[in-house]
Amino acid sequence: MELELQQAIEILERTPATLNSMLRDVPEVWLAQNEGPETWSPYDIVGHLIHGEETDWIPRARIILEHGEARAFEPFDRVAMFEKSTGKSIAELLDTFAALRKESLHELNEMHLTPALLEKRGRHPELGVVTMKQLLAAWVVHDLGHVRQVVRVMAKQYRDAVGPWRAFLPILEE
Amino acid sequence: MELELQQAIEILERTPATLNSMLRDVPEVWLAQNEGPETWSPYDIVGHLIHGEETDWIPRARIILEHGEARAFEPFDRVAMFEKSTGKSIAELLDTFAALRKESLHELNEMHLTPALLEKRGRHPELGVVTMKQLLAAWVVHDLGHVRQVVRVMAKQYRDAVGPWRAFLPILEE
Repeated sequence: MELELQQAIEILERTPATLNSMLRDVPEVWLAQNEGPETWSPYDIVGHLIHGEETDWIPRARIILEHGEARAFEPFDRVAMFEKSTGKSIAELLDTFAALRKESLHELNEMHLTPALLEKRGRHPELGVVTMKQLLAAWVVHDLGHVRQVVRVMAKQYRDAVGPWRAFLPILEE
Repeated sequence: MELELQQAIEILERTPATLNSMLRDVPEVWLAQNEGPETWSPYDIVGHLIHGEETDWIPRARIILEHGEARAFEPFDRVAMFEKSTGKSIAELLDTFAALRKESLHELNEMHLTPALLEKRGRHPELGVVTMKQLLAAWVVHDLGHVRQVVRVMAKQYRDAVGPWRAFLPILEE
């Protein structure tokens, strides 16, 4: 399917509420567990999404608009949240993410991206030439990928608790 | 992690709102696409969850309480929704699921499951002996697995649209 700007925005604007439904006021045990060493908890994932709003998606769209391929994006620090989230409650993180996403979408709207601008090229520090449209599609898929990661991490806490049902629950093997 | 009844309920009661955030009023294109032949769309998945409320989880808990291992559960029709959802809007399906889940959790509460009852055994038609506790853990993981399926199906619609970013988005390969 081709990216259509409004269809992409419809997904991007839903992610804060989706995470809120899943995580706000949930018992701590569901928030803090991960999938083992070097993996992320639901709490970590929300922090990572916040850092993406601050340094990744809209800042990169801005670079494409202003510099095209002439200037590569800043590399994105995927694990910045381990330091940045310290001491914050999940409620604070969810509120911060919702506010930042709202700002991001406001700024996206202000960019008035025409079909020509959606095809405009930029340069990713590792992937090379990419377009504005691909950046926006990647933003949507990145959101969905992290929602899927949150539920997978939570599901795995019951890997043993489900007993013989494990054979019917493929999420436990991912 | 061991199943604790209240912790499991905290997840089960959130699923309708999570699906609602993701799917209500979303453009049709996100609801109707699947992952290819014999796979399910987000619309299909909500119908499947409805059928689970009607015929699977609480009915099976009732059978365990009333008959223990003496009577096997009814087999669950995983694809009943292809017929049952016909003609219904996603809004209707989401409302139906939310109402049924509320009833299910009310009935679960009325069962006053003690630690002894949580260990009570029943018989699954394929998996053999299972406990009440395992049934409830499987219910939670089944919910989470289908939320993950919804986002995976949606993400895959942008598999080509993300261009080179595909290399960084593992959800597209699942």
